[in-house]
Amino acid sequence: MANRRPAKSRAADGASAGPAVILIRPQLAENVGMVARAMLNCGLLDLRLVNPRDGWPNEKAESPSSGAGVVLDGARVFESTRDAVADLQQVYATTARSRYMTKDVTTPRGAAVDMRGFISGGGRAGILFGPEAMGMDNDDVALADTIIEVPLNPAFPSLNLAQAVLLVGYEWFQTADETPERQFRMHNDTRPATKDELVHMFEHLEAELDACGFLRVAEKRPIMVRNIRNLFQRAGLTEQEIRTLRGVIAGLVGGKKG
Amino acid sequence: MANRRPAKSRAADGASAGPAVILIRPQLAENVGMVARAMLNCGLLDLRLVNPRDGWPNEKAESPSSGAGVVLDGARVFESTRDAVADLQQVYATTARSRYMTKDVTTPRGAAVDMRGFISGGGRAGILFGPEAMGMDNDDVALADTIIEVPLNPAFPSLNLAQAVLLVGYEWFQTADETPERQFRMHNDTRPATKDELVHMFEHLEAELDACGFLRVAEKRPIMVRNIRNLFQRAGLTEQEIRTLRGVIAGLVGGKKG
Repeated sequence: MANRRPAKSRAADGASAGPAVILIRPQLAENVGMVARAMLNCGLLDLRLVNPRDGWPNEKAESPSSGAGVVLDGARVFESTRDAVADLQQVYATTARSRYMTKDVTTPRGAAVDMRGFISGGGRAGILFGPEAMGMDNDDVALADTIIEVPLNPAFPSLNLAQAVLLVGYEWFQTADETPERQFRMHNDTRPATKDELVHMFEHLEAELDACGFLRVAEKRPIMVRNIRNLFQRAGLTEQEIRTLRGVIAGLVGGKKG
Repeated sequence: MANRRPAKSRAADGASAGPAVILIRPQLAENVGMVARAMLNCGLLDLRLVNPRDGWPNEKAESPSSGAGVVLDGARVFESTRDAVADLQQVYATTARSRYMTKDVTTPRGAAVDMRGFISGGGRAGILFGPEAMGMDNDDVALADTIIEVPLNPAFPSLNLAQAVLLVGYEWFQTADETPERQFRMHNDTRPATKDELVHMFEHLEAELDACGFLRVAEKRPIMVRNIRNLFQRAGLTEQEIRTLRGVIAGLVGGKKG
């Protein structure tokens, strides 16, 4: 997906104190790189690796990180999950294989809301991710307060590591993001039309339609006028577009005369 | 992330009539495979390819699809974006480079809600994705009713193709998913404790604490009892755990006596 304004050198500017992402025994350094990219997409910086199989630091992580070096450079390695979560106060585990434990279970959205509240109050949170294509050890899951399960197609729910991190991180980012769900975007040099401009355009159009005979059946005129007004109303026209349409009307009329 | 119950042969069972995913001039067949996987994760089946650079069908897509063959097998190739959207009635474009157009702009969440309503009413919707690492042509964007922008770290928003599809598809799936945001998951053979079981455990503990002298300071007794009750109350104990704790109390008392 395209960038608004790429500025990789300042990529960490968009990051805030978020939860730590803890990868337990990740196998491929490439996957660690893709996780770093997904983290920075979501403004997360604190990456922790428990016994990464391919060793760390690892240059194979660089290219897949697509410029998220700030996350890779800050990554810390731990010898056990217990060590990796030692300073944290609230820990989530992304797994679905913990059926022998009594645990709270939440969604990425539920976890994001909880973490945002907890971290806003000064708390330190983290999220555990198991090795690629494997479940997490039950001993690791036991270190978590809550399990995160991603609601997906139950017949095909398997995500790769970076995608799991992306979905949890995405929900984290949304809890603080203020993008309106709907915006009307215009050129810089225009603005939404006022109702007065719209009605003048309608009157212009209807005068021409009267003149050419399109509205000649008197009993149908009110409903036809209403229908035509409705379709233009629905388009949410700009002031510029009103002028364009008035030009179109004049052009069509002139074309007939010419 | 781990599966609940993988059943790849029936993976399409979890899919419903969702929006089409339209990839415009995708470059790598591997990326098409990863898109197919992300689609099936989210219950989406209708994949359309506009002039895929590497040709189609392409066996390089298979392994990255991780078993989403049902999506790959159903993929259709078109010679133009216009042809690919011909039967659709509502089209979204995932891009942020359309600053010369006057368009509605929404988030993946807003688009998902809109599409769910539109498709429930019998409509056919689709989502355009541009080529990897490139913006979409303005002529392609002009075919869309609405632009989708993903709210992400503005200093590092670039997603790969499959991740963009995943986030939009994830939001689509969430609009129909009924997973509660919080669940309390237990062994099959237990259940949450009743308040009666909890209070009996408290009384057992307090009787032993009276006996051993821990609660001997009379004016402090009420607040100490309340604090101890609160901490156990907060744990949301099961009936099984109440029995375990009563065993722990008896064991500790017996240990002292023994």
